[in-house]
Amino acid sequence: MAATFADPAEAREQEEGLVFRPRFDAHGLVTAVVTDHETGRPLMVAHMNAEALATTIETGFAHYWSRSRQTLWKKGETSGALQSVRGIRVDCDQDAIWLSVTSAKPEDTCHTSRITCFYRKFDFESRTLVHSSS
Amino acid sequence: MAATFADPAEAREQEEGLVFRPRFDAHGLVTAVVTDHETGRPLMVAHMNAEALATTIETGFAHYWSRSRQTLWKKGETSGALQSVRGIRVDCDQDAIWLSVTSAKPEDTCHTSRITCFYRKFDFESRTLVHSSS
Repeated sequence: MAATFADPAEAREQEEGLVFRPRFDAHGLVTAVVTDHETGRPLMVAHMNAEALATTIETGFAHYWSRSRQTLWKKGETSGALQSVRGIRVDCDQDAIWLSVTSAKPEDTCHTSRITCFYRKFDFESRTLVHSSS
Repeated sequence: MAATFADPAEAREQEEGLVFRPRFDAHGLVTAVVTDHETGRPLMVAHMNAEALATTIETGFAHYWSRSRQTLWKKGETSGALQSVRGIRVDCDQDAIWLSVTSAKPEDTCHTSRITCFYRKFDFESRTLVHSSS
């Protein structure tokens, strides 16, 4: 599909304008932060190229670019954990996207079979990680 | 300061282990997602090199790596919007960090003088951005 967006502009237009001008990096990617629409909890961080972003907008289902596999990736296509996009926000310089989603299979949001990829917290005392879903 | 972390390991250890093994990219950076400790709201996305991450852990104040200025950046050092780190989580493959913070000056979290960098949402109908703080 056609995946064209307006080019990034000078800082003021990029920050205050109402034209969507995603600033793709040297690899053609923006960072996507994904949160659960109901709880607001961060679920994962992924990357989108123009095609992934355009396909997400067209279909309403989150698509990402897999950097490891170098391919467009419809989230949940294999696991069933499809993500319906409930809202999209963009940050000040438009190089990060925030997706608020509802997952069709929350327990498989992470490929490790968890509701979020952020299932470990850093313990400041021991300087190790601690498993925690809360 | 010394900024040493364990090296990334094979997938299972990286995903299930309790050793903190941040996976810095080719530029020596991990992605940091920053949320408000009280509301859970995403505030910003930034990047950390090993020094920024180690300094954040040592001091309890969020430090990032400025890609544009190529320098360590103590968030709020100029604006006063210092971020006290209330929690750190890491994602499955340890290339993204989630910081939960309390800002000393929330209204200057974004350099555009807003409480979050995500102050515009994408309107699916018009395909433009809409200013919105909620």
